[in-house]
Amino acid sequence: MEPTTTLQDEIKIGTLYPVGGFRACGVSAGLRKSGRPDLALIVSSRDCAAAGVFTTNQVKAAPVLVDMERLAHDPDTIRAVVTNAANANACTGEEGLHNAERTAKVAAEALGITPEQVLVLSTGVIGVQLPMDRMVNGIPQATGILENNGWLDAATAIMTTDTRPKAASRQLDGYTITGIAKGSGMIAPNMATMLAILTTDAKIPQPLLQQALRDANSVSFNRISVDGDTSTNDSVLLLANGDSGVQVGGGPAYRRFLAALTDICTELAHMIVRDGEGATRFVTVKVSGAPDNLSAHQIANTIGTSPLVKTAIYGGDANWGRVIAAAGRAGVPFDPSRLDLWFSAGSNGQSPLQVVANGTPASYEEEAAAAIFAQREVTILLSVGDGSGVAEVWTCDFSHDYVSINADYRS
Amino acid sequence: MEPTTTLQDEIKIGTLYPVGGFRACGVSAGLRKSGRPDLALIVSSRDCAAAGVFTTNQVKAAPVLVDMERLAHDPDTIRAVVTNAANANACTGEEGLHNAERTAKVAAEALGITPEQVLVLSTGVIGVQLPMDRMVNGIPQATGILENNGWLDAATAIMTTDTRPKAASRQLDGYTITGIAKGSGMIAPNMATMLAILTTDAKIPQPLLQQALRDANSVSFNRISVDGDTSTNDSVLLLANGDSGVQVGGGPAYRRFLAALTDICTELAHMIVRDGEGATRFVTVKVSGAPDNLSAHQIANTIGTSPLVKTAIYGGDANWGRVIAAAGRAGVPFDPSRLDLWFSAGSNGQSPLQVVANGTPASYEEEAAAAIFAQREVTILLSVGDGSGVAEVWTCDFSHDYVSINADYRS
Repeated sequence: MEPTTTLQDEIKIGTLYPVGGFRACGVSAGLRKSGRPDLALIVSSRDCAAAGVFTTNQVKAAPVLVDMERLAHDPDTIRAVVTNAANANACTGEEGLHNAERTAKVAAEALGITPEQVLVLSTGVIGVQLPMDRMVNGIPQATGILENNGWLDAATAIMTTDTRPKAASRQLDGYTITGIAKGSGMIAPNMATMLAILTTDAKIPQPLLQQALRDANSVSFNRISVDGDTSTNDSVLLLANGDSGVQVGGGPAYRRFLAALTDICTELAHMIVRDGEGATRFVTVKVSGAPDNLSAHQIANTIGTSPLVKTAIYGGDANWGRVIAAAGRAGVPFDPSRLDLWFSAGSNGQSPLQVVANGTPASYEEEAAAAIFAQREVTILLSVGDGSGVAEVWTCDFSHDYVSINADYRS
Repeated sequence: MEPTTTLQDEIKIGTLYPVGGFRACGVSAGLRKSGRPDLALIVSSRDCAAAGVFTTNQVKAAPVLVDMERLAHDPDTIRAVVTNAANANACTGEEGLHNAERTAKVAAEALGITPEQVLVLSTGVIGVQLPMDRMVNGIPQATGILENNGWLDAATAIMTTDTRPKAASRQLDGYTITGIAKGSGMIAPNMATMLAILTTDAKIPQPLLQQALRDANSVSFNRISVDGDTSTNDSVLLLANGDSGVQVGGGPAYRRFLAALTDICTELAHMIVRDGEGATRFVTVKVSGAPDNLSAHQIANTIGTSPLVKTAIYGGDANWGRVIAAAGRAGVPFDPSRLDLWFSAGSNGQSPLQVVANGTPASYEEEAAAAIFAQREVTILLSVGDGSGVAEVWTCDFSHDYVSINADYRS
């Protein structure tokens, strides 16, 4: 019954297309004790329109504050993104802000651009000042090895407890979108310790770019959770440099861009869930029949973050009572006697097994339910009434390894 | 460094005073495979005023619905409470409601009272019909062995994954209050799979009794969490039969009653946390300086239910960054540069070690923090500003055993 491969093995990176005018790389600046790569640099040879979505946490890391300000003031001339792992530069006060700005300055000098053209991202331990001597040495080192095909190296350098690099790419209509991301703890809707950097050589007005990112993000990264904790550093950046000469201004062209962007974001989001700390199962939760989409999302998210649901799934236990109990505490009124619940193997909801009908146990074979929960991918389908609200979220199970990883992370 | 006793060993039951006119017992009705006691009966020789607080979950178990109706219609003539473990009688539809009512009827017949005078409680697995043949056999068996000193037997019979029975007692002003409770998973504010039955031989008007229970509950049981999951069955009942002849009508006498009741509820609530599934550490979270008490509670509760905070505590890791990050996502606006955070050994906040000052790391020895987190009891004190809102919650850590217990519970 034990699968011979892990959930993480299913993270398959397809072809990563170079993006016109962009280069990337990853180097070891010595921020990690292990000596693994820990600094990623992404540079565009042309000014980019840049969009960003950031953590909703009240406590925002220094690089988040710096980027939010840059994007608020001059989002049309961005040229580079510096990302470091191993240190979140969060809860670091004035010195942390200064260090984030100095990081941008050092990169700007090495690249011959202005500090305002550089965005910065950090991920790692909170409350420790960035070791600036190492940053100052590492950045020029990175500028020397930038290349068109450096995406995988960049994706590798931003990993923390991730076990796999995460990257995805699409080509359409004469332009390319390529992005990288990292998870993998503190993952929750409204952004988590989750970084993603997306680039395209399409030419898109910044307000439209921001709208596309917001829309794509809301149905991809904001639909995943690993542990319900939302971090101080979550950021998704999208840079468009127009190098392909293809203009995306609105109408069908925009809708095609948005669809491709959403597709990449969803692919990266699923990779993050598959690489969730200690994850052994990929779980899709679909809720329908709620008064509205927001209510449906609230219910789906409460199920998807319930420790009792997630430990049951880890144990391969088709424990539908915990699903119903989680739905009931989501804060959305519904009629319990209208609840219908199905389990299904895989992520598409095919061949669903009804386990609850009208709020009471349906007649089914426990073996059939157990067979579903023996799969690596499981879908939970819950209908709470006849409203039109629907939502889908993705999560993973809650395992011994999650506890081990997080009990030991700092040491 | 490993303690030689467990957190559970610290659950000490003091003297359990008999309560005038009340008798209790626990028997094995065969609901558990193990043959352990699984049915508790508490009976008063006089009519009781009865008060109750129940789960806020949209999905309420059959016994909860039955009791809520009984208390809404005739809360002044209650005589008995039947509690079964191993089966929650939740998500069981009409048949479940019928079974809850039949349970009351069988007890009423055995005791020579009316079914409306009997309250029922259930805890255990969701979605399975109560085996009524066993209930019908078990109840008359229980009526035969009721005794004044049966509280510990009753407390033992209502355990599920609890490792220790939970009971507490006080005598004051010529009357007694004695109560029993059970945890220990699905514990979260707003009630959890948590049952408590409190009895007193004081004479108190029902509306005042309900008010006292609501007030005591809000600062005791509603302040604890084990995993943030709120169950379908949570109930706290308080029965007053007046057997002592002491009247508690208001004023100082009422305030003394409320204080003693709160004291017992808090003692039982702490026992539940200490016996939380897989718990190795007892954690007190105190938040001050919030705009109001509700905001403070929201922040304290977000910290207390954060898997990242709880796994760090399990690992003995003074990982204050996770505490700050949890506070930041609680949905309460505050100025991050005003945050002060202390850790302290024990539950009283003595000799606090400041780890964050004005939102940035305070200067302290990591060893001093580690020494605090090596203790079995730890207090987290967070000030978020200069508001007057304060709150205190109690929780436990998140261990490998929590995962083991909940991955295997049904099997």
